[in-house]
Amino acid sequence: MRAYVAVVGAGRASAEESRAAERVGRGLAEAGAVLVCGGLGGVMEAVCRGARSAGGTTIGILPGTDRGAANAYVDLAIPTGLGEIRNALVVRAADALIAVGGEFGTLSEIALALKAGKPVVGLGTWELARDGAQVHAIVRAASPEEAVERAIAACGLR
Amino acid sequence: MRAYVAVVGAGRASAEESRAAERVGRGLAEAGAVLVCGGLGGVMEAVCRGARSAGGTTIGILPGTDRGAANAYVDLAIPTGLGEIRNALVVRAADALIAVGGEFGTLSEIALALKAGKPVVGLGTWELARDGAQVHAIVRAASPEEAVERAIAACGLR
Amino acid sequence: MRAYVAVVGAGRASAEESRAAERVGRGLAEAGAVLVCGGLGGVMEAVCRGARSAGGTTIGILPGTDRGAANAYVDLAIPTGLGEIRNALVVRAADALIAVGGEFGTLSEIALALKAGKPVVGLGTWELARDGAQVHAIVRAASPEEAVERAIAACGLR
Amino acid sequence: MRAYVAVVGAGRASAEESRAAERVGRGLAEAGAVLVCGGLGGVMEAVCRGARSAGGTTIGILPGTDRGAANAYVDLAIPTGLGEIRNALVVRAADALIAVGGEFGTLSEIALALKAGKPVVGLGTWELARDGAQVHAIVRAASPEEAVERAIAACGLR
Repeated sequence: MRAYVAVVGAGRASAEESRAAERVGRGLAEAGAVLVCGGLGGVMEAVCRGARSAGGTTIGILPGTDRGAANAYVDLAIPTGLGEIRNALVVRAADALIAVGGEFGTLSEIALALKAGKPVVGLGTWELARDGAQVHAIVRAASPEEAVERAIAACGLR
Repeated sequence: MRAYVAVVGAGRASAEESRAAERVGRGLAEAGAVLVCGGLGGVMEAVCRGARSAGGTTIGILPGTDRGAANAYVDLAIPTGLGEIRNALVVRAADALIAVGGEFGTLSEIALALKAGKPVVGLGTWELARDGAQVHAIVRAASPEEAVERAIAACGLR
Repeated sequence: MRAYVAVVGAGRASAEESRAAERVGRGLAEAGAVLVCGGLGGVMEAVCRGARSAGGTTIGILPGTDRGAANAYVDLAIPTGLGEIRNALVVRAADALIAVGGEFGTLSEIALALKAGKPVVGLGTWELARDGAQVHAIVRAASPEEAVERAIAACGLR
Repeated sequence: MRAYVAVVGAGRASAEESRAAERVGRGLAEAGAVLVCGGLGGVMEAVCRGARSAGGTTIGILPGTDRGAANAYVDLAIPTGLGEIRNALVVRAADALIAVGGEFGTLSEIALALKAGKPVVGLGTWELARDGAQVHAIVRAASPEEAVERAIAACGLR
């Protein structure tokens, strides 16, 4: 069975985040993983573009009811009409999560994945602490390629 | 943009329903449509088998959280953990619906599609009435091939 | 534990349906049941008005994200942002269902309740058939008071 | 219209967290707010107990389909069968959020509320950072009473 990896990040991405996301997408496709994302712009579009450039399969789970809102690199666009609740479905559809940068929506996906016991790999994303002490729940990757490698490895371990 | 057609029906199907569903799946694949279904057995498995036999793409939106529950002919399995609420997502993901036989879960999908204004084609499925008068909201097809033809045509008209 | 009874019906109701719904609401309140509904107008408003007139508690599970969309007789308004998917939550929140008239949204709620094995009592609502034979899954009531009596009794039997 | 305030926190709470949650519940009831929570134990139970001790109204939005899973201080128990996705509904049902301690589920609720632009007040809860810099999105309260005051004030400002 192929690994399903969700890549999450903001709908508006910096040039650096877009480049990182694109490399993540390419790496996932080369590893034979199915890419799951929120289907819109920014990090979501960049990661789909990368995956498609390497022949990968991309799924976009959309917040609205209009399939046409998906970015051009989504193979299979699934409108949900759930708004931000679709974030939870992105997490449920995946075996592991890679977070690239990200705003509060991304944080919700990280939290839901950790709650469900799914591995989360971070590239320049949120840092968590409680009572002044860092909580090391997110696996930090130093490069897009390392993020892919760690996410794929984590899928295998589950 | 490809048409997305949901095929809905019971998790246990008669031999006749299975044959009909398989022909529906094959017809949809030949028409270039993406097949969306609930991903389990019975009608869902038969329609996926038919679609795959003609090289089509099949999406299974699963009620549980275990991807392994998908039938063997699902290309992309999306666990949701929503139980029967995933029926509503099957409907939202589709441009048109074909109902083959079916129990109460199928009836809920028919109703949600009609509520959303999406075309519903029926093959041996529920009949609806109010105040003793039939309600002709479901387009009746006399064969699997006619069901496919009508569903695809309806997608184009929307 | 109090019984929770969902009353479902269209957002636009005839004068007769409104009168019936109001009597259903009053009866449920007198029986000590909590009323669950979709929180909007038509049958939903009438049933809440009836329940409140007899000192009952009314919950409105709303399709949008704005609490202000609830009718004036909802005690506790729960915005969901789920659109029609909130119908499934109305059903899940209830021990039994009473359908008063109704359009396709109501039919989806009837179907989901029957699928979940919850009793459904109908007042002038949908009639179901398969293969030309009526399916007697909905308990028919001849009056609002009988509908309440049957729904409350069914809660007790489960 | 009454304020609806969600109080979120873990299903297992320390004695200190329970005491804090109980005081939050009492404060919310005294302020006339409706309490929304996840309906189970730990912080959820303590805050309901506090609210009920002051005559408040408590709503529990449950992850499962069994109403009986609600703690004894929930007035209105709403089973959803959504699992952790019910966290998103707790957030949608509220005008403001108070987080008491909390694990990853609580973090998801904080993130969803911030994403939706709803005020979040924290009592000994998560601390967020990006790129080594703290993100001050959660309003910190030094006492349960201050948490209530700030949450109620924030409802009024929206």
